[in-house]
Amino acid sequence: MTKLYVVGIGPGDKDSMTIASVRALTEADLICGYSTYIAIIKEMFADDEFFVGKEYYETPMTKELDRCRHALAAADSGRTVAMVCSGDAGVYGMASPVLEEAKEFPDVEIEIVPGVTAALSGGALLGAPLGHDFAIISLSDRLTPWEIIEKRLKAAAAGDFCIALYNPRSHGRPDALEKAVEILKGAGVSVDTPVGIANAVGREEPTIILSCLDGIPYEECGMVSTVFIGNSQTYLDGVQMITPRGYKE
Amino acid sequence: MTKLYVVGIGPGDKDSMTIASVRALTEADLICGYSTYIAIIKEMFADDEFFVGKEYYETPMTKELDRCRHALAAADSGRTVAMVCSGDAGVYGMASPVLEEAKEFPDVEIEIVPGVTAALSGGALLGAPLGHDFAIISLSDRLTPWEIIEKRLKAAAAGDFCIALYNPRSHGRPDALEKAVEILKGAGVSVDTPVGIANAVGREEPTIILSCLDGIPYEECGMVSTVFIGNSQTYLDGVQMITPRGYKE
Repeated sequence: MTKLYVVGIGPGDKDSMTIASVRALTEADLICGYSTYIAIIKEMFADDEFFVGKEYYETPMTKELDRCRHALAAADSGRTVAMVCSGDAGVYGMASPVLEEAKEFPDVEIEIVPGVTAALSGGALLGAPLGHDFAIISLSDRLTPWEIIEKRLKAAAAGDFCIALYNPRSHGRPDALEKAVEILKGAGVSVDTPVGIANAVGREEPTIILSCLDGIPYEECGMVSTVFIGNSQTYLDGVQMITPRGYKE
Repeated sequence: MTKLYVVGIGPGDKDSMTIASVRALTEADLICGYSTYIAIIKEMFADDEFFVGKEYYETPMTKELDRCRHALAAADSGRTVAMVCSGDAGVYGMASPVLEEAKEFPDVEIEIVPGVTAALSGGALLGAPLGHDFAIISLSDRLTPWEIIEKRLKAAAAGDFCIALYNPRSHGRPDALEKAVEILKGAGVSVDTPVGIANAVGREEPTIILSCLDGIPYEECGMVSTVFIGNSQTYLDGVQMITPRGYKE
C-alpha cells in the first residue's frame, strides 16, 4: 500500500498544527507544496532530527495540477508523500484536486488530514466573529467566474450570515474587496456592520483591525488577510468582535 | 494576570487536537465543559502524568452561562482555567458566551484556542465536500428561531453554496433535517445533489454515508452527525464526495 497524505498545516505556526498533521509530515519521505508553505515547514522543523534528509517538491501557486500529479506518481512508486496546504486541506486546499487526479493512481491510498482554516485561526484572534451560522467565500476569480462570487455575496447578505472572505485582495486584484463590499451594501447589509481583519495569522507579527463596512482600510488588506463581516447581531466590544450564539428574542 | 483559555478540542480524538490545545489543557488547573467533553478529555489523558490531580467542572448541555461564569470566577481568583468546546471554540462554541460574560471580569485574560470544527473533520473523511465556497448552518432551534434557520437555508440554496449542517437531528427534534431538506428542494436544489453524512468522527467507530438529497436515511442521523450537501458541481466518486475547487467553463 502506497500512501499520500493531504495535510492542512493551519495558519503557519507549529502550535496550530494538529498532532496528526505533524505525524504525517514526519512520516513522509517527500513533502510537496506551494513554495511559500514549503519554506514555512522547513523553518518550523529546522531543528527536528526526523526532518534531516527529507525531500521536498515545490511549485509556484498556479501549478497545482502539476504538484498533484507529481505527488501521486511519487506515492505510486512506493514513497510516503505528504501534500501540504495552508489552513485546512479541504477548504480551497489540495484535497479536491488530488482526489480528482487520483483516478489514474488506484493503488495510492489517500488520507486527508484536516487543519485549522483561516476562518477559525483569524476568528480566534478577533474574538468570536463566527459565533453563529456563517459562509466562507473566496474573492479570487482565478478559478471562479466573478458572477458566481457576486451571486454568493448577495445570497450571504440575504441570509444574514456572518461572512469570512478569503483572498480578499492582491496585487493582481486590488479592487476585489471594495467590489465585494459594494455588492453587500447593495444587497442590504448595513454600513455599520462590524468588520474584522486578521492579517498574517500564524506568522511572526499577526495584527487585527476592527472597523465597519463603510470604514475598511483597503490598503491594509492583502494576500495574508482574512476579512470577517458580521451578521445583524454582531458587535464590537473593545478589541473584540462578537457574534452572539443565540438570537435574542 | 489570570488566564482563561477557551479551547477547541476538535472532534474528540487526541490526534485531531492542535499542539496549542493540548498545551492549554496541560497548563490549566481547572477544566470546565459540557459533561460529554469532560469525559472525552479524561479518557484521552488518562495516562498523562500532567493530568493527575487536575480538577474538572462539568455541567449539562443547557447550562452554558453557568459554566461561563464559573470558569471566569475561577480564573479571576487566580487559577488557570480551560473551558473546552468540541470542534472549534468559535463555531457554535463557548468563545462567544465567554466573551459576552467577561465584561464583569476585566482582570481575566482570555485566549481563544481554535480547533478543527466538524465541517473540516467530517469533510476529510468524506473526501472534499467543501472544496468551494460553503455555508455552515445549525438546525438547532434551541437558541435560534426556526424562521431564521429557514431564511439561511433558502439563501444558501440561492447562492449554490456547499452546506454543512450541524445538529441535524436529535430525539427532541426528530424532523429537523427532513424539514431542512424540503426547504432546500423548494428553493431549487436538485434532488440528485450529492449528500454525505459523517457520524461519530473522532470517536471509536466513525462512519460515513453517501446519498443524494432525495435519498437521505434520516434514521441514521443523530446528535453525532454532520450532514454535507453539495453545490451544483459536487459529485460522488466511489466512496468519496468531491466539490471541484474551480468552476468548469
